[in-house]
Amino acid sequence: MKKILGTTLLLLGMTTVFGQAKEDSIQFSKIATEILNKGKSYTELKDLTKNIGHRLSGSDAYEKAVKWAEQKLRDAGADKVWLQEVMIPVWVRGKESLQIKTTAGKWKSLKMLSLGNSEGTGGKDVSGEIVMVKSMEEYDKLPAEQVKDKIVFFNYPFSQSFIETFRGYGDASKYRVTAASLAAKKGGKFAIIRSLSSALDDVPHTGAMRYEDNITKVPGVAIGNTTADELEALIKAGKITAKLNSNCGMKGEKLSHSVIGEITGKKDKSVIVVGGHLDSWDVGEGAHDDGTGIVQSIEVLRTFKKLGIQNNHTIRVVCFANEENGLKGGIQYGKSTKENNEKHLFAIESDAGGFAPRGISLEMDDAKRSQIKGWANLFIPYGVYNFEGTYSGADISPLHSMGVPTAELVPDSQRYFDIHHTDEDTFEKVNRRELLLGAVAMTQIIYMIDKNW
Amino acid sequence: MKKILGTTLLLLGMTTVFGQAKEDSIQFSKIATEILNKGKSYTELKDLTKNIGHRLSGSDAYEKAVKWAEQKLRDAGADKVWLQEVMIPVWVRGKESLQIKTTAGKWKSLKMLSLGNSEGTGGKDVSGEIVMVKSMEEYDKLPAEQVKDKIVFFNYPFSQSFIETFRGYGDASKYRVTAASLAAKKGGKFAIIRSLSSALDDVPHTGAMRYEDNITKVPGVAIGNTTADELEALIKAGKITAKLNSNCGMKGEKLSHSVIGEITGKKDKSVIVVGGHLDSWDVGEGAHDDGTGIVQSIEVLRTFKKLGIQNNHTIRVVCFANEENGLKGGIQYGKSTKENNEKHLFAIESDAGGFAPRGISLEMDDAKRSQIKGWANLFIPYGVYNFEGTYSGADISPLHSMGVPTAELVPDSQRYFDIHHTDEDTFEKVNRRELLLGAVAMTQIIYMIDKNW
Repeated sequence: MKKILGTTLLLLGMTTVFGQAKEDSIQFSKIATEILNKGKSYTELKDLTKNIGHRLSGSDAYEKAVKWAEQKLRDAGADKVWLQEVMIPVWVRGKESLQIKTTAGKWKSLKMLSLGNSEGTGGKDVSGEIVMVKSMEEYDKLPAEQVKDKIVFFNYPFSQSFIETFRGYGDASKYRVTAASLAAKKGGKFAIIRSLSSALDDVPHTGAMRYEDNITKVPGVAIGNTTADELEALIKAGKITAKLNSNCGMKGEKLSHSVIGEITGKKDKSVIVVGGHLDSWDVGEGAHDDGTGIVQSIEVLRTFKKLGIQNNHTIRVVCFANEENGLKGGIQYGKSTKENNEKHLFAIESDAGGFAPRGISLEMDDAKRSQIKGWANLFIPYGVYNFEGTYSGADISPLHSMGVPTAELVPDSQRYFDIHHTDEDTFEKVNRRELLLGAVAMTQIIYMIDKNW
Repeated sequence: MKKILGTTLLLLGMTTVFGQAKEDSIQFSKIATEILNKGKSYTELKDLTKNIGHRLSGSDAYEKAVKWAEQKLRDAGADKVWLQEVMIPVWVRGKESLQIKTTAGKWKSLKMLSLGNSEGTGGKDVSGEIVMVKSMEEYDKLPAEQVKDKIVFFNYPFSQSFIETFRGYGDASKYRVTAASLAAKKGGKFAIIRSLSSALDDVPHTGAMRYEDNITKVPGVAIGNTTADELEALIKAGKITAKLNSNCGMKGEKLSHSVIGEITGKKDKSVIVVGGHLDSWDVGEGAHDDGTGIVQSIEVLRTFKKLGIQNNHTIRVVCFANEENGLKGGIQYGKSTKENNEKHLFAIESDAGGFAPRGISLEMDDAKRSQIKGWANLFIPYGVYNFEGTYSGADISPLHSMGVPTAELVPDSQRYFDIHHTDEDTFEKVNRRELLLGAVAMTQIIYMIDKNW
């Protein structure tokens, strides 16, 4: 296309605001101009993803990321930077392989990933015939004797019909979380799930699973969509045997840290939190999940300093430990605020990918919600129009349960579950301007909260 | 992130509509479910980009694309498919090279692309000292004797400050369009421009330039951002000579075609047009510009047939010829409607990339505009909230000037000018769900227009 007029009128049309709102819209514009031209999120994300890479709780890479975040917060101009002790669970993947034997008698390796927190086979081969079900309902009807000593393949597809892919994820995630326990209950040897993936490719997606109490801890593994389709076809044609050999498992606990930095409030010491989680799964580079949330949160602090915005309240960046397989960082942070008796005004997390922002989800009482919705016209010129969500970030859920109003950045969700918890979650999948615009929206909402609450 | 609740409430919260609107929201949902699950846009785009590739007007590839589009329209279930004759200009790139000689005396090749419609050097070396300007204003002040026999480097950066990247494109595009003529006016030998690129990389962007009447046709070429930065530094350090050798130029005209397919109106024969342009520049694969608009438009027709929606008016897909370097397809289509006395109710184009849709831009009288804005609540659950734009597609501008209400799909603009008119505009840069959601929005708006106009 060569049309060159573009959407000037659109922006103008949307920014006719007056008085107080006028002053705020000027500040919004300054924030956007600063970040879009001089923001460091993108180069910092490249550094984190390429020089440290994925950083599972308990790994050496995670400890490197702790030092990295500490330094970046100092560079951004934090008045105070510290580490908060957190005991984190250590899960290790080790070697893993999944093979199938067709009726033709040949063994074939399948692309796979053990699910996070899964036990392995202790390096031994564990094999059995595959029983495939398409849904929980179908599995519930299956008599235990038909599952005993078998491998259960939960072949439930990620729904393409939802507009917001988080709904498809929410719909399918129970399979990832419970498949292994369900298989164990009927005497199955291990569980295979179709990955929670919106892409029609062969990339396996890991992610957290949980064992029910007092249950045999059989392994849970994931395969990609095309492998799942092929396996389905084979099973329909005849008996298929699967063989798993894996070394993954929990290796106790370890002392680690969340990383915290703040600029002190000029009027009082009540706290506004902005954060993401510093840990990632042990695949890819943890770029969209959640390197982007970390660099955007640091960008917020840097921007307040760069523009010399006088913050009434303390603005605190929290890089949470262990979101992916324990939430221990978020839980510990919640505890510490109680112990230290710190008043928290508001907390927002960015943990849904570094894509172009579309809204801010608000988990708070109606009065505060409608006050924030009243600011919508200021945000619309920045593509942020959706304030209808009523959830917020996992790491700040302990704060919310203590009565703190919480929120989450809502980026466009279309690409997130193509790469979520996979080897494909790399720096190259992040667009510079989309990432920076997320940091703009977070800085803008915190500017408004700091000024008005 | 592992949070699994997602935005169910968001969607529900936004779709509480009643009566007529309820019936429409059910139809909107059917359209989305059909396209997101069974849409063919993505596989058809892969076929077009990988098996035909880029397809400049006048090339053999373009003629292949004509046959391809004809077949795809038949496959989609068009009642009638035909070719419309269009005389198109033929521009050929041929070999091209740009070198610079530093004060050290070494020649160095620069990554470059001649601008579309530019004349070349006829295979001869044309060289001279580079004069750099940062803006039009600076160039206007420059005396002709300081430009005579020199090479003019228009080093104007693409602004990062606009939220909608089309504004940055609109702001910088005059340099691409006029640089060669401006250089010629003061006796310059050729013009170099910094590419119209939102990405901070070294990819050169081509695109249309125009010669003023009765002017010496000196060449115009583009270099990428990092090459432009390096060249700027060298020029500041001393005299730099540039040498261009290129074979590009206009090669007359050629008879070619736009491709048209329609489903006949059940109530009357008045026409609703949906389209994109079939041609592309001679780099990359013409994926986002504008293969996506073509496959989305065909998807609209297919979806009406698949869902058995009884269209009152004729719904016509137009795959326009020669948008990039002549607009001859759009002009010819406008003429033909006048000759055939065809009443056109509405026309919409998709030519801003296959990214997640955010709105529909409306170029029409206030009454019609506010009627469409009145439908906004139906579109918001699909991420389509912005009806403030007042422009529409270039190919349908001749229809607009005849009084037809026109519109354009407004996708998210953040990634478009990273790859626009470059070797990077490939299939891999298109996300399946984002592409399909654009087709959903186009089908939904045409459903509403067909039903209510």
